[in-house]
Amino acid sequence: MRIAVVAPSCRLTEQAAGRVQAIARDRGDCELVIHPQSFLSDGHFAGPDDARLAALREVMADPSFDAVWYARGGYGSNRIAEAALADLPAAAKSKVYLGYSDAGFLHAGFHKAGLRVAWGPMPQDVVRGGGEAAVNRALDWLVRRDAAALEPALDGPAMAFNLTVLSNLLGTPLEPEFRGVDLLIEDVGEHLYRIDRSMFHVTASPAIRKVRQIRLGRVVDILPNDPPFAGDETTIIESWCRRSGIEFGGRADIGHDAANRVVPFPARND
Amino acid sequence: MRIAVVAPSCRLTEQAAGRVQAIARDRGDCELVIHPQSFLSDGHFAGPDDARLAALREVMADPSFDAVWYARGGYGSNRIAEAALADLPAAAKSKVYLGYSDAGFLHAGFHKAGLRVAWGPMPQDVVRGGGEAAVNRALDWLVRRDAAALEPALDGPAMAFNLTVLSNLLGTPLEPEFRGVDLLIEDVGEHLYRIDRSMFHVTASPAIRKVRQIRLGRVVDILPNDPPFAGDETTIIESWCRRSGIEFGGRADIGHDAANRVVPFPARND
Repeated sequence: MRIAVVAPSCRLTEQAAGRVQAIARDRGDCELVIHPQSFLSDGHFAGPDDARLAALREVMADPSFDAVWYARGGYGSNRIAEAALADLPAAAKSKVYLGYSDAGFLHAGFHKAGLRVAWGPMPQDVVRGGGEAAVNRALDWLVRRDAAALEPALDGPAMAFNLTVLSNLLGTPLEPEFRGVDLLIEDVGEHLYRIDRSMFHVTASPAIRKVRQIRLGRVVDILPNDPPFAGDETTIIESWCRRSGIEFGGRADIGHDAANRVVPFPARND
Repeated sequence: MRIAVVAPSCRLTEQAAGRVQAIARDRGDCELVIHPQSFLSDGHFAGPDDARLAALREVMADPSFDAVWYARGGYGSNRIAEAALADLPAAAKSKVYLGYSDAGFLHAGFHKAGLRVAWGPMPQDVVRGGGEAAVNRALDWLVRRDAAALEPALDGPAMAFNLTVLSNLLGTPLEPEFRGVDLLIEDVGEHLYRIDRSMFHVTASPAIRKVRQIRLGRVVDILPNDPPFAGDETTIIESWCRRSGIEFGGRADIGHDAANRVVPFPARND
């Protein structure tokens, strides 16, 4: 299997790239082709919008790649997501797109456009504690659709999003169809009042109210709230589900950590 | 003029209340009635949702008040905004509602419901450097609609919002009609990448694309971006206006500071 790595958001570090390449060589079941754009730097981003877009479109259009693996999150894929979908080449539909966090902007728009996308670990995760397992989990799923890599409680159509990213794509041309899916959410580096505000926004959306249920992944690196927020992330999510009439389906095994599992978005039938 | 002060978001400090009462007494042209709910505390909020809602509805329904002045921002008015508008009493329509920041959730829903709302300084602002001038500016406008209190470049229907609050109310039942208005935005305490993300979200909204133009107030207390973001708040707002086909109308004299001016929302004709 040939896997292209590009960085539509922030840049991949050379250290992470080397370690992930070593893992792939040791496995012997896949070839990772890390696009040089992954190492560009332009302020916050892995190169200017034009460069990130060109690299993404190049690997999407290349029929020799079976998968596109986003190098890391951060911020910035929303700036090129719509343009990436213009005049979609046939080869773009024959591959799968894997990543999480900021890649949610791409996942949303790509799923809406009929492409196969999945939430899961990314190359830069290798630098986390336990990161090699995360990278191998992603590759196990990409190469042989290993069920052990999947979020363990999936039992129907599901999507996974970073809550803040989800909030920021609602109402945009990237917004996908949520009807009937299990919506798995997680977040990182937010104050609890922001989690509460994002849940207000997300659960007020008529599109989101069509999900089968919401399940809560991990909310990590929560920033201090002054004064302390009444409740925690679970009571916040449960409370907004109750208020909006959305079923709360319990916890989910996803998050900004090395234990993060794979959540393939539903196959499109249209 | 009788002005009710309530706190739909975070609590008013006793120190600020005392100083604002002293200013009102010295002026002699208005009576401030600070609702005891303003001093409640429940985690992040000025009392539980029920208490904040009850106090707000009480002063809305009281025909002896000419104005409702939100004590301060923070976070939380979104949790009670819809309920505040249920079975609207006639007295609620005969007064004006003043505040900014988190009060944007109330402004949006209240304006949609036909109430008179205005962006402007709040009682808690008195503790800022120059805060007495901010409080007097708000009272000058409340008591005698002093034009000197207004944002100086207003020349037609206008609305003002904190950018992050605006992003979080789009698509909710609170979303007002933006057609033809000058939309003034500002923000506080955000990373530039978040400003960029919020502008992506806001300018992608078909409702927002109906504004006459966007004008940019101050963006203060910007949090460090790692790595540094390419550009500043002005280039970010200009760039998203250009991408979305919304006219950029230059800077506006509003912000989270003592210089913050008053922006009355357009009168509703329906």
